Amino acid sequence: MSRQMSIGAFMMRHGHHVAAWRHPDTDLLSNPFKVFREQVRAAERACLDAVFFADSVALTGAPSLEPLTLLSALAASTEKIGLIGTATTTYNEPYTVARQFASLDLLSDGRAGWNLVTSDNAAEAANFGREQHVAHADRYARAREFHQVVTGLWNSWDPDALVDDKSGELPYDPAKLHTLNHRGDYFAVKGPLNVVRSPQGRPVVVQAGSSETGRDLAAATAEVVFTAQPTLAKAQDFYRDLKRRVADQGRSPESLKILPGLFAVVGRTQAEADEKFAQLQALIEPKAGLALLGRMIGNFDLSGYPLDGPLPELPETQDGQRSRQQLLTALAQGENLTIRQLYERIAGGRGHFTVVGTAQVVADQMQQWFEQGAADGFNFMSPALPGGLDDFLTLVIPELQRRGLFRTAYAGSTLRSHLGL
Amino acid sequence: MSRQMSIGAFMMRHGHHVAAWRHPDTDLLSNPFKVFREQVRAAERACLDAVFFADSVALTGAPSLEPLTLLSALAASTEKIGLIGTATTTYNEPYTVARQFASLDLLSDGRAGWNLVTSDNAAEAANFGREQHVAHADRYARAREFHQVVTGLWNSWDPDALVDDKSGELPYDPAKLHTLNHRGDYFAVKGPLNVVRSPQGRPVVVQAGSSETGRDLAAATAEVVFTAQPTLAKAQDFYRDLKRRVADQGRSPESLKILPGLFAVVGRTQAEADEKFAQLQALIEPKAGLALLGRMIGNFDLSGYPLDGPLPELPETQDGQRSRQQLLTALAQGENLTIRQLYERIAGGRGHFTVVGTAQVVADQMQQWFEQGAADGFNFMSPALPGGLDDFLTLVIPELQRRGLFRTAYAGSTLRSHLGL
Repeated sequence: MSRQMSIGAFMMRHGHHVAAWRHPDTDLLSNPFKVFREQVRAAERACLDAVFFADSVALTGAPSLEPLTLLSALAASTEKIGLIGTATTTYNEPYTVARQFASLDLLSDGRAGWNLVTSDNAAEAANFGREQHVAHADRYARAREFHQVVTGLWNSWDPDALVDDKSGELPYDPAKLHTLNHRGDYFAVKGPLNVVRSPQGRPVVVQAGSSETGRDLAAATAEVVFTAQPTLAKAQDFYRDLKRRVADQGRSPESLKILPGLFAVVGRTQAEADEKFAQLQALIEPKAGLALLGRMIGNFDLSGYPLDGPLPELPETQDGQRSRQQLLTALAQGENLTIRQLYERIAGGRGHFTVVGTAQVVADQMQQWFEQGAADGFNFMSPALPGGLDDFLTLVIPELQRRGLFRTAYAGSTLRSHLGL
Repeated sequence: MSRQMSIGAFMMRHGHHVAAWRHPDTDLLSNPFKVFREQVRAAERACLDAVFFADSVALTGAPSLEPLTLLSALAASTEKIGLIGTATTTYNEPYTVARQFASLDLLSDGRAGWNLVTSDNAAEAANFGREQHVAHADRYARAREFHQVVTGLWNSWDPDALVDDKSGELPYDPAKLHTLNHRGDYFAVKGPLNVVRSPQGRPVVVQAGSSETGRDLAAATAEVVFTAQPTLAKAQDFYRDLKRRVADQGRSPESLKILPGLFAVVGRTQAEADEKFAQLQALIEPKAGLALLGRMIGNFDLSGYPLDGPLPELPETQDGQRSRQQLLTALAQGENLTIRQLYERIAGGRGHFTVVGTAQVVADQMQQWFEQGAADGFNFMSPALPGGLDDFLTLVIPELQRRGLFRTAYAGSTLRSHLGL
């Protein structure tokens, strides 16, 4: 069989467009679990590899559900689709994170993935007793040791440690249970974990760092990387660079899958797609546009600047948005954009690969990226829910299937199997 | 309608009897979520108020699932039954606990309960960078402030904060969102929480402390207390004492429900019940019995003492098992029990109210406790699963329903409604 794409759906409460919640079709009051359940079941019918939930340990935008509880409820509502959730290494304990993901992995029969992030904003810090967020280098050093502890704990139990033998002293073979005894700069964790392995062995590790430090961490530890790449050329550079770093770690380049985000507005005709996008763009509240842009350039308050004037000179941000800040500043200068034009440019895909068009147009672009060394697949970002996801699942996925680029049925039952890891 | 019992099912991987996993009917290898799902659905068909999961952040006994992920998966598999899980205040952050329980509460449409505990054993401490467990007084001071932060965060959103209005700047009314700004001895947490209220307003707070400090904390903060009481007289003392402390706090005594644990082995005849109990007792491995007894008297190693000799003089334990240690020492001395006889005595109910008999016998005892000021209901502890739970649900519950002591259908949809809170 020829190489196939991995495709995830990056789920957000109302969709990824900053005005998604104002779209006539979004449902503001229903139980968000029940709303997500229908969408994730649709993604499963389309044989997607996984759904993916971001996270913030503070209120940013609309309130939503916490990923581990939500994904566990979704696990009970689906059979095959992978379930990737975000948990920060900055304000959690590794025993707790290892355990909750192992538990999700076991109860879902091997479909869990952990998106390892560091926390870089002040609102999050303030919920955990800190005056300001942790410095970049310190966050990454902690993240690396955190990953070491979590994966060490996931190795507590050999796959055959549980025995169907009621004559002994314990319901498992103690020789197949391993104590971690970790002592490092940030953590001392004895172990073992009190959750056994799932059918996929251990949760899949996902990351999205794009700084130098972030890429090195990903090359050393990640199995999937989710990334924001606006153009084919930049995506190819990133792909080549990260796969090289993976090889430098002595790992096979295929052991890490690179999935750029894809913000796609899909119509049955180009005019219908354009009209759908224009409808969302027209719903942008200037304050919301400014707030989004301000967050993405390093939590800079733009409210004092004229909307139709240029982006001011910005101090270089010290937080995790540095590469995003550079990207947007270059974009504004290169195309001479006003503040309003710049936030309109990012209101949908936030700097991710963006396509507006028919299924053929979207599939052509995806195929080009996939075949020209820019991507192993994509993390689809729906403009507004549920319509934007339905369009992608019912129009683009069948087109990719016709081209032999995407599965028409799940071959296995675990996330690791879907991803070919 | 006359006063009715609240009844929960305290679920454990294989059952509460120390030899439960060795029972011929227990399932050692299946996915534990799927095993629990069948049992919890049966409890829901019998209209129980809730299922209850204990927790340990270390391996103690058989490995199992983590409560919040498990309960979320069970929420998606049931419609009405309450879902109570344990989370320690000793090794967690209040923002995280508040958020995960709020999320479970929202996705389950108002069925969550948080069993607030402190962690008192060295194995748990060693998974969180500590040489030994935190001292009793310090644990309780932290627990009280932790509760204050969690419930404060649960009040972040007014019930009507979400609005179905797409014309504004935000999908909620910012005047109905409250920032906590907590600064105390243990925590500084700004808030607000990023999860909105469920239909029951906020999760139910459950506790099980029995020390003086534990009772004071419960009187100030708990809505349900789960307690180990071996006899009617002791249960009456505890009930009277705790309800008095609740009144001293200016709370209505009905605002706290007291549910003693009930370990019941049920048969269609007394002989059948006796035989079922004897079958389990015969399966006790001496090492497992000794280990259980050692844990319950304050983590004291009894392996050097003759099984058929007396319990040695014990140093008074400094950890959370002090009241259990006193109870067991008094029992051994009062009845002149050997070590083996003592562990056999606790191998099932671990010091909880224990009844072996027909549905009539069990219901008579429950009715007596309920009507004579010892209990507002019970937390049923199944000897071995699934049989022990099935017996209780299909034999005892109908008997209680015939007596008008327990509902025959859910009147409401939330845990708070089931409990009459």
